[in-house]
Amino acid sequence: MSKRQMKLGAFLSTPGNHLAGWRHPGADVDTDMSFRLYMRLAQKAERAKFDTIFFQDTAAVGGSDAMLRGDRSRERLCRIVKLEPTATLAALAVGTSHIGLVATATTTYNEPFNIARRFLTIDHISEGRCGWNLVTSQIEDEAGNFNRTEHVEHALRYERAEEFYEVVTGLWDSWEADAFLKDKASGLWFDREKMHFLNHRGKHFQVRGPLNVSRSPQGRPVVAQAGSSEPGKALAARTADVVFTAQTELEPARAFYADVKNRLAAHGRGWDDLKIMPGITPVIGRTMEEAREKYEELQALLPDDVALTALSRFTKGIDIHAYPLDGPFPELPLTNAARSRQQLINEMARKENLTLREVARRVSAAQGHRVLVGTAAYVADELEEWIDKDAADGFNVICNYYPAPFDDFADQVIPELQRRGLFRTEYEGATLRENLGLPVPPNRYATARRAAE
Amino acid sequence: MSKRQMKLGAFLSTPGNHLAGWRHPGADVDTDMSFRLYMRLAQKAERAKFDTIFFQDTAAVGGSDAMLRGDRSRERLCRIVKLEPTATLAALAVGTSHIGLVATATTTYNEPFNIARRFLTIDHISEGRCGWNLVTSQIEDEAGNFNRTEHVEHALRYERAEEFYEVVTGLWDSWEADAFLKDKASGLWFDREKMHFLNHRGKHFQVRGPLNVSRSPQGRPVVAQAGSSEPGKALAARTADVVFTAQTELEPARAFYADVKNRLAAHGRGWDDLKIMPGITPVIGRTMEEAREKYEELQALLPDDVALTALSRFTKGIDIHAYPLDGPFPELPLTNAARSRQQLINEMARKENLTLREVARRVSAAQGHRVLVGTAAYVADELEEWIDKDAADGFNVICNYYPAPFDDFADQVIPELQRRGLFRTEYEGATLRENLGLPVPPNRYATARRAAE
Repeated sequence: MSKRQMKLGAFLSTPGNHLAGWRHPGADVDTDMSFRLYMRLAQKAERAKFDTIFFQDTAAVGGSDAMLRGDRSRERLCRIVKLEPTATLAALAVGTSHIGLVATATTTYNEPFNIARRFLTIDHISEGRCGWNLVTSQIEDEAGNFNRTEHVEHALRYERAEEFYEVVTGLWDSWEADAFLKDKASGLWFDREKMHFLNHRGKHFQVRGPLNVSRSPQGRPVVAQAGSSEPGKALAARTADVVFTAQTELEPARAFYADVKNRLAAHGRGWDDLKIMPGITPVIGRTMEEAREKYEELQALLPDDVALTALSRFTKGIDIHAYPLDGPFPELPLTNAARSRQQLINEMARKENLTLREVARRVSAAQGHRVLVGTAAYVADELEEWIDKDAADGFNVICNYYPAPFDDFADQVIPELQRRGLFRTEYEGATLRENLGLPVPPNRYATARRAAE
Repeated sequence: MSKRQMKLGAFLSTPGNHLAGWRHPGADVDTDMSFRLYMRLAQKAERAKFDTIFFQDTAAVGGSDAMLRGDRSRERLCRIVKLEPTATLAALAVGTSHIGLVATATTTYNEPFNIARRFLTIDHISEGRCGWNLVTSQIEDEAGNFNRTEHVEHALRYERAEEFYEVVTGLWDSWEADAFLKDKASGLWFDREKMHFLNHRGKHFQVRGPLNVSRSPQGRPVVAQAGSSEPGKALAARTADVVFTAQTELEPARAFYADVKNRLAAHGRGWDDLKIMPGITPVIGRTMEEAREKYEELQALLPDDVALTALSRFTKGIDIHAYPLDGPFPELPLTNAARSRQQLINEMARKENLTLREVARRVSAAQGHRVLVGTAAYVADELEEWIDKDAADGFNVICNYYPAPFDDFADQVIPELQRRGLFRTEYEGATLRENLGLPVPPNRYATARRAAE
């Protein structure tokens, strides 16, 4: 029996996911704003046959409110400015030909017509390789840039996100695939029967349509989601093609995987119609010892106060600086921001009996994602185990800095996975859906017409 | 004395500005959604040394409301779907190296933080070649896609546009050019003193900032505007680097030019700090006769009802179909939509004593822009005269279909202009500001600091 192959995403968390990664002598510190470096990474990822590149997004300088209150510790955090992801995806489409192009855009501070239009356009520019990571805003700093003094409440954000999704996918069905006649002889440009008004009237949105972008080569963009809270899982099971998640331990990852997958049938969806991809941060060495040294070298570059600042994103409601650094980790209250990440941190601290300093340093190292420190064979073993044990369909690879850790994964781990038959050696198709093995969603109106005929 | 050189923009009005242009045997009908064809046109424009390419924008299918009411005449209009312009610009940045990249984005149905961020990002991706054409929405169909049942009123749109501009340019000053230290030894990523909060609190927007994009190679994107109404001219004189306008006659064009330019000094701006670029639609033949035949060939492809439908965009308040086609043109009421274009049409009809049919066919041919039918030498003569007589600083070239009319202009008119010393043979610089001869706007906070020192 041939092995189940894994999917791989390259999460371009530039200039580095480790908060001190940029201080490494080999780190390229221009990756925050240099498009040329992004292009180099995307092309490298494509040569390595990654399914997608992926950009996270925040519509704010993180820590803005704290800085306004006089907090100076942020000056040592590297992820402050970055290229806007949708424009960056569109540009990367030109220099690549097979890799998927996925970016986050929030449903909290955008209009669905604008998002539907831009992502479907990128799907055309890339000839069917685009994906939208639908999120609700987690970073409270965003509110102040969008006419609000307070962050939108968690339940309301999800309610808006659900309706936002309905509007966006409804607009993506505005045109059937054969709607455009372009018949020079008759002078008919399109077939009015194959253009559809959405006429959505909901609590958050009133959107007439139609969208002024036609159906794309893969039907419509892939939809990814990253929420792991209860409403997040419910929304994902109904609507997502891909789920990005932070999972650090095998058993909770298997439980999450089964939980989300078991919800699919209720929505008439097959087990494989949704791909679950936890994040991993690899630290690769020729020996286990060398890998551990590499990791320690990075950790040594991270001052405790930077680690605490990074952690404080998740500690609203308690003053984390008031606790002793080497005392036990205080339970984080679950708040309106990044709830499932708070839960994960609490569990990790409790389970391993960690001090505040240890938690802060670990969170800063990988933002709550799983860190795999070892040889390429060790990393491949770990990934294989998670696939075999139904903890994941694939992984989002997150790097501590660029380019060396990314090159290590592409040049050492991927060939090892390929030797084991666990990863492709050629792209299966031309579109992202083809490469992920996802169905092309039918146009709802075309389906209704065929049913009526 | 060397001659004053003109600026040239390639207004990519695909699949064709003439409403029946797409029916021409040589017209490529895939230019509405094919990025590859856009890239081919952009690269051709760059080889011809155009200053910019330019995309108009509408966040709706034009005629949506009319079609909902049962109007079937729109099925013969070709500009129905198109690629979203900002994503398209970003992608075109990769395949070009010198040409400016300008797109329209409305201030009526966007958030300033999102617009500031995306255009400044494209300015980075293109290494300083981006421009934003600031407009207020003119197409009433847009309202229904953005939670509104009615179009925003003209004066309110301009009020919002003014404040929108203040917020966007304020956000573009969030970071001084030398704000990022990226000092591995000290661990300092940026200099807090060179990051600036906007803290804007106005009638339409509350925006804290800072923008999460750093200053670009040309400081910030070029700002273009297209409004020719009184509030449009006032806003342009204060804020625009470039003005796009529809002018069909020399004397009114000179008056418009003098009017806008004479307002600059009051804002401390120099005469050359703003470039005025009327649109022109060239129809080029080897002889005057051949050019006229080409024009008639196009006009013959245009049914009267399509011409009337196109005109009806400007005829709110009267039922244009109730008037006799060969009777005198009825005066258009000036409404809340495209006011200066309505005025232009009224003047043209009165001056030349045109029938309704003649007006409709002329508007459909060029959307109110000036049509130049003749040899390359004739077109060059006309452009030269307008430059010499201070009616324009340059022109936005609009084509009836693609690619032949565009190739004709690039291959025949531009070499003629170059022979006369009226157009560049090499780009002057690397950024759009350098090529347009526009100053780099100083960062307001850096200026204030230098003044205080």
